[in-house]
Amino acid sequence: MLAVKIETGQVSVFERPKPRPRKGHALLRLRLAGICNTDIELLRGYYGFSGIPGHEFVADVVGAANPKLIGKRVVGEINLACGKCIYCQKGLGRHCPNRTVLGIVKHPGAFAEYLTLPEENLRLVPNSIPDEEAVFTEPIAAACEILEQVRFPKNAPVAVIGDGKLGLLIAQVLHLHGLKIHLFGRNQTKLALLDPLGIKFSIINRETPSLPKAAFPFVVDATGSTEGFNAALTMIEPRGTIIMKSTVAERLHVDSANWIVNEITLVGSRCGRFAPALKLLKSKRLLLAPMIHGRERLTDAPQAFAKAQAAGVLKILLAPGL
Amino acid sequence: MLAVKIETGQVSVFERPKPRPRKGHALLRLRLAGICNTDIELLRGYYGFSGIPGHEFVADVVGAANPKLIGKRVVGEINLACGKCIYCQKGLGRHCPNRTVLGIVKHPGAFAEYLTLPEENLRLVPNSIPDEEAVFTEPIAAACEILEQVRFPKNAPVAVIGDGKLGLLIAQVLHLHGLKIHLFGRNQTKLALLDPLGIKFSIINRETPSLPKAAFPFVVDATGSTEGFNAALTMIEPRGTIIMKSTVAERLHVDSANWIVNEITLVGSRCGRFAPALKLLKSKRLLLAPMIHGRERLTDAPQAFAKAQAAGVLKILLAPGL
Repeated sequence: MLAVKIETGQVSVFERPKPRPRKGHALLRLRLAGICNTDIELLRGYYGFSGIPGHEFVADVVGAANPKLIGKRVVGEINLACGKCIYCQKGLGRHCPNRTVLGIVKHPGAFAEYLTLPEENLRLVPNSIPDEEAVFTEPIAAACEILEQVRFPKNAPVAVIGDGKLGLLIAQVLHLHGLKIHLFGRNQTKLALLDPLGIKFSIINRETPSLPKAAFPFVVDATGSTEGFNAALTMIEPRGTIIMKSTVAERLHVDSANWIVNEITLVGSRCGRFAPALKLLKSKRLLLAPMIHGRERLTDAPQAFAKAQAAGVLKILLAPGL
Repeated sequence: MLAVKIETGQVSVFERPKPRPRKGHALLRLRLAGICNTDIELLRGYYGFSGIPGHEFVADVVGAANPKLIGKRVVGEINLACGKCIYCQKGLGRHCPNRTVLGIVKHPGAFAEYLTLPEENLRLVPNSIPDEEAVFTEPIAAACEILEQVRFPKNAPVAVIGDGKLGLLIAQVLHLHGLKIHLFGRNQTKLALLDPLGIKFSIINRETPSLPKAAFPFVVDATGSTEGFNAALTMIEPRGTIIMKSTVAERLHVDSANWIVNEITLVGSRCGRFAPALKLLKSKRLLLAPMIHGRERLTDAPQAFAKAQAAGVLKILLAPGL
């Protein structure tokens, strides 16, 4: 089969045998995958990664112990938990210290014609959700995770910093939850994508340094940069909550005195359960089509990765064929 | 009157006129004050402070517009809020951006024979609470603040890092709240002070580097140091909550990837309301006497500050006479 490889900062395509699923794992044939910022970080050396990346996908089940799964269109939760440790017993498999992670930690990813995942990780995709939307399940789940971690009062004002893919999804998910979103970012075109939903936005860059001060009880930082975090610290009200949504490896330099004196709560937030994301996708209230900026074949993965890193570009999809 | 001054890293005692209370302020005659770590930080240059320090005190009201206050023994909330801004209107006067703070920000402190505070800041001290306990009201309120910010499940295990004055008070307050406390610090003698309450403790230092890993759902860092914070990050469970209790000016270097991937919540926590602290003091369940390591006269403030900075020393009190 064809598969994409990241090794020493290079993307390449190679032939390898179809993976043989372990006991309890299903064999999946890729329909569509998406390049995430984490994939780009992997390329840049995050986690010292080497192997087949890809964790956003929709696929057909072609082999499984459970006959009801065969032929079904599925998405898959990306953490492969051990099932035995205290976290797994508490239902926190996403934090299992022995876990592997699809396309990120010691489990070959979805940028390949075939992949394997435990059957328990698979979620059926309703017919009403096309591949081009189902492929967003994982990042939407990451956005939905915020709602499981933080209790928002009704209509609470929330600043979302970052107009990347995740920032735009977070803004939409929180907006649909009834919160009053103000999106901040650098790129007018990307920010304006959510205009049809009525989501307010402002451009922030070096020419517009006057951020609203202590203006929001909740701020989501979806930039993962020290700069974004400092912007969040400026915008947050005393006793407010900043949600840190990012997996960027940058080391933050935090002025703890300011943050503690103002009694800010910082919530680290990562990936989430797929069920709420599939429910949202089924509602058809998300604006996803304008976020797709390209569709490439697996064989063209190097170009696809180059495109995905270009300024102003949002989601690039990868398909076995076109 | 006699007053203590901090200026360019020096403590001195000087004569100055009795303060004349502004409208709405009461004139207080000091009974007893306590040296807090914040005072030591002020001496070391925190806030660029210069003036009369002191914010832990118990005093007699000698002048007030409200005749019911005259002659009463009081403690006082330390934040002088503007009363007009949006924070004050929300009841968040402790975070009023225009506030002054007794002995810390632009309001002369309690290390003097007389001081002034708004009448609304004063809290009557019940007769059953002697001066030597009442003087702990402010730091106990800071410890109680944690209970207003974080919801703890019943009997939850909590690690408290730091065997300083605040760490010992936090351990006691959370213990009396029914939580399962494990205190970590460097000083066997200080840690063992809470033995009579049945609070478990462990010594951590360079010779004992093996901290329990991912062992606590809640950790309070009362060290304010990068080292303490890193210990907290080691001990905290995925999805756990670290309470940052400190006003130390040190800049923290935070490995954000680890913290975000593990979905840790960090709660900055500062000072608190006096009512819960006075209630606890009235209950007589706190162990305070062993925490008092000296009592000096205001005139001996330089020696008192030197003592307060010595290794192993906890609370040093300051009194107008002895």
